[in-house]
Amino acid sequence: MKIRPSIVLFGDSITEQSFRYGGWGASLTDTYSRKADIVVRGYGGYTTRWALFLLHHIFPLSSTTPPVAATVFLGANDAALPGRTSERQHVPLEEYKENLRKIVRHLKNAQKNVCGSTNIVWPLLTRDKNDLFQHKTVLTCYPAMKIPERTNEVTGDYANGCVEVATEFGVSSINLWSRMQETQGWQKKFLSDGLHLTPDGNKVVFEEVIKVFNGAWLSAPDMPYDFPQYSDIDPHNPEKAFRERCL
Amino acid sequence: MKIRPSIVLFGDSITEQSFRYGGWGASLTDTYSRKADIVVRGYGGYTTRWALFLLHHIFPLSSTTPPVAATVFLGANDAALPGRTSERQHVPLEEYKENLRKIVRHLKNAQKNVCGSTNIVWPLLTRDKNDLFQHKTVLTCYPAMKIPERTNEVTGDYANGCVEVATEFGVSSINLWSRMQETQGWQKKFLSDGLHLTPDGNKVVFEEVIKVFNGAWLSAPDMPYDFPQYSDIDPHNPEKAFRERCL
Repeated sequence: MKIRPSIVLFGDSITEQSFRYGGWGASLTDTYSRKADIVVRGYGGYTTRWALFLLHHIFPLSSTTPPVAATVFLGANDAALPGRTSERQHVPLEEYKENLRKIVRHLKNAQKNVCGSTNIVWPLLTRDKNDLFQHKTVLTCYPAMKIPERTNEVTGDYANGCVEVATEFGVSSINLWSRMQETQGWQKKFLSDGLHLTPDGNKVVFEEVIKVFNGAWLSAPDMPYDFPQYSDIDPHNPEKAFRERCL
Repeated sequence: MKIRPSIVLFGDSITEQSFRYGGWGASLTDTYSRKADIVVRGYGGYTTRWALFLLHHIFPLSSTTPPVAATVFLGANDAALPGRTSERQHVPLEEYKENLRKIVRHLKNAQKNVCGSTNIVWPLLTRDKNDLFQHKTVLTCYPAMKIPERTNEVTGDYANGCVEVATEFGVSSINLWSRMQETQGWQKKFLSDGLHLTPDGNKVVFEEVIKVFNGAWLSAPDMPYDFPQYSDIDPHNPEKAFRERCL
């Protein structure tokens, strides 16, 4: 029996490291405590090109319980410049965008098979007649201005490309590239090495992701607990609370 | 396809809150990154008596992919004193021990159905001929000296009871009650309110759990990655690395 819905965080090292001290993945887990499982699928160094190989494994089309939401946080490595130390990770902008399209299409297909319905308003998280959660996909665009492998200007192009793809498909996007640069001294405040997040940077990502989820029927306070809260359990008749939840 | 094994953290609020800033659950997730999924099943306020209602749902006997390890972190609420404000949570010591026995027996049964073998050395985490991970269960005994609902002396009795049950079944145990008291000023250093963990307290729990896992063939550095590391991917022939992993 699947009790809780799951939310998958798919991406590169920014996702892989999201459970370090003050990490945005850990904060999401805490926020959705007893309501949804946060599943981390972050792969340090991965580009969209390599991420495509994982799609069918992480989001199998045959699954009857796909995640209700997913964050796709890729591009920081794709934006590595050709002719520099991280050249092997470079993925040209147009291919990056096409790869993102493939990822979004795959997520859409993975979700289709579940509800057996073509009436799903996708990718907006909504509830169908059976009150099932639907997929929510968030593409995240990142500043990643680590020099000498990357420049802020080029990563800006990738961030724009990411937003374009999200708009094409009507999925949500978070433009961290512009969001972070609203704050003076963002380079040191939000990034530890020009690429990875400081605790403050993690906080920004967490807040932006929560903002999207809250606006898409995936607000933690509104979601049901998987099991009764202890204050609802009658110490003299504990069975009652569990029976009421059909447990 | 189940790519990663899972480790379930089962318990009360000390487990539920383990993904807060510097939490031991988040640290475990980071440690087992790309190798095992940490699944948090913490229920604030729960006693062993109420936890029994959840056993079949969290550890279904029919599962063919049960967790390779579990921490059972219960007792802080059971140890609430009768006649005080948290009386409704009080579970007598002997019943507490009997409930723990039921939990351990259930975990043992959940694991039995998987391997179809009676040769499993349980509950020591080991590898059978098929190199499958087996269950590892850790009972955790906690100081929880929050006054006026609890006294350190009484919680010490519960900690001893927990160790006794672990010994009976040959499962691992962590006696945090005694471990924490080795440090001067442990009350404020490790506990924020006499019950819940400070970041330092979280660190102690994390280190003790890792110590048990490391000693039981569940050492993260020795476990395989689910997917190739990016440094193993040939940028000119990325298929190769994924094909070698049968992906």
